[in-house]
Amino acid sequence: MVSAQILTVGDELLSGDTVNSNLAYLGERCRRAGISVLRAVSVRDRVGEIVAALRDAAGWADLCLVSGGLGPTSDDLTAEAVAVACGVDLVRNEEAVAVMTEMFAKFGRPMPDINRKQADLPGGADMLANPIGTAPGFAAWLPDPAEGGRRCLVACMPGVPREMRRMMAEQVEPRIQRAFALPAVFRRIYRAIGRGESAIAVDIEPIIAAARTRSPGLAAVYLHYRAAAPQVLVIVEGTPGPNGERATAEELAALDREIAPALQPAVYGIGEADLAERLIAALARNGQTLGTAESCTGGRVGALCTGVPGSSAVYLGGVIAYHNYIKVRLLGVDQGLIDANGAVSEPVARAMADGARRALGTDFAVAVTGIAGPGGGTEEKPVGTVDVAVSDAGGTTYKRLKLFGERALIQHVSAMWALKMVWDRMIELGLTEVGVQD
Amino acid sequence: MVSAQILTVGDELLSGDTVNSNLAYLGERCRRAGISVLRAVSVRDRVGEIVAALRDAAGWADLCLVSGGLGPTSDDLTAEAVAVACGVDLVRNEEAVAVMTEMFAKFGRPMPDINRKQADLPGGADMLANPIGTAPGFAAWLPDPAEGGRRCLVACMPGVPREMRRMMAEQVEPRIQRAFALPAVFRRIYRAIGRGESAIAVDIEPIIAAARTRSPGLAAVYLHYRAAAPQVLVIVEGTPGPNGERATAEELAALDREIAPALQPAVYGIGEADLAERLIAALARNGQTLGTAESCTGGRVGALCTGVPGSSAVYLGGVIAYHNYIKVRLLGVDQGLIDANGAVSEPVARAMADGARRALGTDFAVAVTGIAGPGGGTEEKPVGTVDVAVSDAGGTTYKRLKLFGERALIQHVSAMWALKMVWDRMIELGLTEVGVQD
Repeated sequence: MVSAQILTVGDELLSGDTVNSNLAYLGERCRRAGISVLRAVSVRDRVGEIVAALRDAAGWADLCLVSGGLGPTSDDLTAEAVAVACGVDLVRNEEAVAVMTEMFAKFGRPMPDINRKQADLPGGADMLANPIGTAPGFAAWLPDPAEGGRRCLVACMPGVPREMRRMMAEQVEPRIQRAFALPAVFRRIYRAIGRGESAIAVDIEPIIAAARTRSPGLAAVYLHYRAAAPQVLVIVEGTPGPNGERATAEELAALDREIAPALQPAVYGIGEADLAERLIAALARNGQTLGTAESCTGGRVGALCTGVPGSSAVYLGGVIAYHNYIKVRLLGVDQGLIDANGAVSEPVARAMADGARRALGTDFAVAVTGIAGPGGGTEEKPVGTVDVAVSDAGGTTYKRLKLFGERALIQHVSAMWALKMVWDRMIELGLTEVGVQD
Repeated sequence: MVSAQILTVGDELLSGDTVNSNLAYLGERCRRAGISVLRAVSVRDRVGEIVAALRDAAGWADLCLVSGGLGPTSDDLTAEAVAVACGVDLVRNEEAVAVMTEMFAKFGRPMPDINRKQADLPGGADMLANPIGTAPGFAAWLPDPAEGGRRCLVACMPGVPREMRRMMAEQVEPRIQRAFALPAVFRRIYRAIGRGESAIAVDIEPIIAAARTRSPGLAAVYLHYRAAAPQVLVIVEGTPGPNGERATAEELAALDREIAPALQPAVYGIGEADLAERLIAALARNGQTLGTAESCTGGRVGALCTGVPGSSAVYLGGVIAYHNYIKVRLLGVDQGLIDANGAVSEPVARAMADGARRALGTDFAVAVTGIAGPGGGTEEKPVGTVDVAVSDAGGTTYKRLKLFGERALIQHVSAMWALKMVWDRMIELGLTEVGVQD
């Protein structure tokens, strides 16, 4: 198996200024290509520290994917570091200068002189075009520190995520395919909301243990649990065993018949697609529409829905009824109901859902009202008390959540549960099912 | 300066299943404590790979912060790896078993047997209590690989972010303070929306160059740019020079008088507080309220506002008018205006903002309508065309954005610009100013 290191460069990754989303993206692309990422390293914008990480990779990795440090400013030092690690000088790439000049001209701006630095690439490196930014990337071979010959393909990409992603897909992945023979690694993902990781493990592990006895490929499968509240993913991956034996796609798919029922009613689907994608697709298949009424989630349910391309066909809109006055004015909730029960209560959640369905003219509406904290909790209704209701022509379903954690987590978990409640209702109505969607 | 490695453990970090937010959190806590994080490493859930990363840290770091791999399942191996690196055995910690048993009892659930494994800690390690999860952490001293004596404090925390954060604050940071003498590192952050990183650098670098001549402390400052569209942060940090000289808080604060004006009108504030926090605080100071009308952002402006604790005092709510029918029905936009100009147009954006202010009864309302893609673009209005309008009693301001990138980016950038437009209008009305807020 091709082994890789991911090297992300930038003080901002170590100082907490930036969350390292590039690492996750590059890791996913490698996994899908059958490349085994054994280690990820983040270093500061210092030549010596970048060089040390590159030399370490050259000692054991076939591939080192690098992002960051290609910009125009004085703290962008990746090209210099790769030149040192390769034992070559920086050479100004005139093609890169021309592309950059043209890009600034297109936007009607003069190119600042400091941008020219971005065209200084390690001698012998291949330039990687950046159609949506000024910093070109480059690819080179790092010498093995012990032997001196070419050892590790290093591909340097910008730190700006959208530029890195496009360069990875268009420039780097084809080079990797040319350089290495890559096998396919299959995996199966079971997606659950409503059951903890330990409880799931207790149910799943005997099933996997039995499966391991069936074939050498299944014996080698790797079992992961990925918990990000409220969701737990169970991932069964066909990683190769000691003699290269690995589970086939068919062997993994056959596990569905045992694993999915064992996780009911928490499991909502199998495969890569997330809950929002599945929900939007299921609504579209049935010609049904959805609306939202959000208090404590403040727009997050709408954001989850509208994050799915094409959601406009089924998600018509919503009301963010943060203040009670909006619940009354736009959703038609009776002020007396709020006075009698409080804004966070079953009757108000139900009235918000029913009111949203009327006000928005949708087939389904989901409402969320709760106490996200840090203030606003009482003994009877502590922070984390959240009521969710789903309204459709056949009735209104309701659930009270009792959540823990900080404000942002409570808001996120509540928004995910709102989608799960709609999904569960669609299953109850026979409009969708727990299936495979990648 | 105390030097640290952050070690995050878990296949999910390398396979792209999880974005490594723990790294950013731990990096920020270290920066604020004056600890210099020189390197961050992520490895898979394999004993040998965790041990190698621990031994590497023991060779150069004073501190190694570890998160992940403390759970109950078979792929949780951090305690075993630390035991190997320390040359000790795992020992069942009966206090940890008792705490765990009690926690399960509190939730009325029997403790699965596999959870006991979480109480097996490296011999001689201190248990770190986890009041909100079942996995305790632990702290130990790694021996220097060359000398054998104690060298590097290693603190192992759970991978679940909320559990890790609380353990870091309550258990780990006090231990670090006891173990090391930590100096204060000051920094100044200038926050801008509406100007690119290169253009900002051209304006800023001469100011910093001149400042460096003023004192040895200022000569040593470290200048960062952190770009996350649409925002660029300029960070001037008092990192120590070769002889330990560092800029004082007062020296850094004095830079405001030059840097803030040089970045106008893009800069909205100085300090840690983000735009949403400042906007909510400014509205509250003035007793003003805000509402939202969102089409392409689908709730993200509301989510940004309601992410701020206490926002309920000023953010009353909004309408997610994703379908045109909702724009007409709930915001009172004239259907003829949409037919004549299209939903993404200046007249419709203005009508949405004015309509939202009326419908929601707020002092300010901001409206966003645009084409987030990937579909829906035309030659005249390509994907990324977004209209933003702000309505208040004094009038309605408007701006057309021309954005690039994928759907999620366009939605995020548009939502941030919506807040910036309200902020700019409040500045124009004399209701707020560009100030320091941490």
